[in-house]
Amino acid sequence: MTPIPAAIAEALIAAGHRLDARGWVPATAGNFSMRLGPDRIAVTRSGYHKGFLKPESLMVVDLAGQPENPALRPSAETGLHCGVYRRFPGTGAVLHGHSIANTVLSRAAGPSLTLAGYELLKAFPGLPTHDASAEIPVVDNDQDIARMQAGLEARWDGMGASPPPGYLIRGHGSYIWAADMPGALARFEALEFMLECELATRRSA
Amino acid sequence: MTPIPAAIAEALIAAGHRLDARGWVPATAGNFSMRLGPDRIAVTRSGYHKGFLKPESLMVVDLAGQPENPALRPSAETGLHCGVYRRFPGTGAVLHGHSIANTVLSRAAGPSLTLAGYELLKAFPGLPTHDASAEIPVVDNDQDIARMQAGLEARWDGMGASPPPGYLIRGHGSYIWAADMPGALARFEALEFMLECELATRRSA
Amino acid sequence: MTPIPAAIAEALIAAGHRLDARGWVPATAGNFSMRLGPDRIAVTRSGYHKGFLKPESLMVVDLAGQPENPALRPSAETGLHCGVYRRFPGTGAVLHGHSIANTVLSRAAGPSLTLAGYELLKAFPGLPTHDASAEIPVVDNDQDIARMQAGLEARWDGMGASPPPGYLIRGHGSYIWAADMPGALARFEALEFMLECELATRRSA
Amino acid sequence: MTPIPAAIAEALIAAGHRLDARGWVPATAGNFSMRLGPDRIAVTRSGYHKGFLKPESLMVVDLAGQPENPALRPSAETGLHCGVYRRFPGTGAVLHGHSIANTVLSRAAGPSLTLAGYELLKAFPGLPTHDASAEIPVVDNDQDIARMQAGLEARWDGMGASPPPGYLIRGHGSYIWAADMPGALARFEALEFMLECELATRRSA
Repeated sequence: MTPIPAAIAEALIAAGHRLDARGWVPATAGNFSMRLGPDRIAVTRSGYHKGFLKPESLMVVDLAGQPENPALRPSAETGLHCGVYRRFPGTGAVLHGHSIANTVLSRAAGPSLTLAGYELLKAFPGLPTHDASAEIPVVDNDQDIARMQAGLEARWDGMGASPPPGYLIRGHGSYIWAADMPGALARFEALEFMLECELATRRSA
Repeated sequence: MTPIPAAIAEALIAAGHRLDARGWVPATAGNFSMRLGPDRIAVTRSGYHKGFLKPESLMVVDLAGQPENPALRPSAETGLHCGVYRRFPGTGAVLHGHSIANTVLSRAAGPSLTLAGYELLKAFPGLPTHDASAEIPVVDNDQDIARMQAGLEARWDGMGASPPPGYLIRGHGSYIWAADMPGALARFEALEFMLECELATRRSA
Repeated sequence: MTPIPAAIAEALIAAGHRLDARGWVPATAGNFSMRLGPDRIAVTRSGYHKGFLKPESLMVVDLAGQPENPALRPSAETGLHCGVYRRFPGTGAVLHGHSIANTVLSRAAGPSLTLAGYELLKAFPGLPTHDASAEIPVVDNDQDIARMQAGLEARWDGMGASPPPGYLIRGHGSYIWAADMPGALARFEALEFMLECELATRRSA
Repeated sequence: MTPIPAAIAEALIAAGHRLDARGWVPATAGNFSMRLGPDRIAVTRSGYHKGFLKPESLMVVDLAGQPENPALRPSAETGLHCGVYRRFPGTGAVLHGHSIANTVLSRAAGPSLTLAGYELLKAFPGLPTHDASAEIPVVDNDQDIARMQAGLEARWDGMGASPPPGYLIRGHGSYIWAADMPGALARFEALEFMLECELATRRSA
């Protein structure tokens, strides 16, 4: 069995505290993962509040989503985490959370949301200046995770060499990733900040 | 006299800290309870700030709302707690709080609020997917608690086998319950999250 | 010299922590006081951030606003605190803070704001039910504190035996009082909650 | 090499905690500095989250922005900090942060934002009463920091003897300064409070 190093467990637990403090993991929503090796990730187990994680709230799965310990049930959305690690091999951490802004905007959006002219776009790769725009895919929610992942693959195929490191699920939440947990948290905060700006702009227009 | 086990007192106190951190128990608003046995619940006493509960802020009543210790005064709304435990025998914890979203939306609503298409609907029983809707009853506020409870019973009678585990009182707040306190907190956060989304959607429409 | 009992200092410092956590004492705004005796109050000194009070941030004045220790400068608005203690002899604590809601609504208001149909109106005296309304005076801001206080006296004279225990200063903030600090904090939270509801209602109308 | 006194490092670290708690330094955004001497400032290094600063997240530059230790990379915006210290010699601390309000309002604004009739204007120098207005410059964002600083100099040249101690960069954030860190924090909170009021006013109009 692959052990989960204490530093990895601590990083996942701390991410939960941070997202919970902002209200981004309500109820038992959200899930987080970090890479342990070429074919192994640590991921949050199903049904726990992500603001109160403990080492035993975590488990190990391979990149097909199969648990090493068959007695443990991973989050239903583990397949979406695995899909990111398989498609973007440089990924070291994946965060999923729910926010008012990403929920409200994704419900109202078409197939993508465009963010333009924000300094914080620099938190995304390949955008060295604010004078740029990012097209964030918005996919329909689906309880069939394999089907949702297949739809994401098709979207990424159509987005050139470097799709943005995140997407929204309609009425559900956001997925964000980076090479390590500090990078994933920074991108999560950057995306949510820009989405809150978009929502506030629509309110005051 | 039925003792209140330390774990029950701690769970009620911790619930108060958590709701207070979100601004959901302003002034001396809100009240919480947990089941102690077939005909006994622990409930918050009247007049205390729910963000600063101590073991002595709690008391024991039977399911008719009668205090075991007649020297203590339970919250005026204890009858609504008892009404939930009587009607839904699997209930282990009941939370009542006030939020901006539940107050503003309940003031503007008709006899119910419908929530549809949110992933977080899965936090409610009987809704295994997001592709569903929940009709949350909204009842008029009334200082005659017995009359308000009778109105709720009539509403529940008309809602089939499984009414949703919560309701709103107009201009007042929400009641939510579950088999245990973690479940009640998860449903409280889920309901408030969806209500905040509804309010934000109306603002930006 | 009248000493400030440790319990009084602690209550004033704790009030500052609580209001600061909600963003209600930005910059060096806000000021607090508690009664020490028939003609003495402890009040915050001028120029300190109210989220970081220490015992030495407090001083003693009489009900005319004169410092016991002439080397210390009380807040410019001490005269408004004294005005409350003189007019309403049962007062034991006065809180003044700035919030987004009380600033925005007071700027847009006429001579008063009416709050009606909120359960939290019960936090104010003389309103045993939610089926009531409270008319909160809104006075123009004025750097001449004596003149502002004279205007308040005139407003109170016209409001019958029991004016509400609070008022707003236009574009500036709110004043709230009660027999003790827990009561003043509860009324502060109740008033701000209802004002936030009013602001959210206008946004979503 | 100029040492960074522990008190300076602590003040910069504490400022980061405070701004982070309000959501004003998302991702790795924001940067802070304090004066060490006539031609030396301590400034945050590039790429760190400002809510988790440590003494080693800081470095020393001269007022032309040159690092004393050439192995360390200062924030890209260090030139804007230096520009403030050169132009306003009484400056002891400079804060830069991003907020929803300053981002949304600066994107929608022309060359300046006017704040009028707020009590909190008294937090700015030269405004002894609320019955005043402050014109806050809004400059276009530019990755060429020297060019942005030149534009600011031209704006200040046209604003008389005492330009306000702060400005906004469009879609990016705010810069605020004062003689010391408590003063800079107070002005930051005052500016953000008034901008939040402006945004809320537009929403509810």
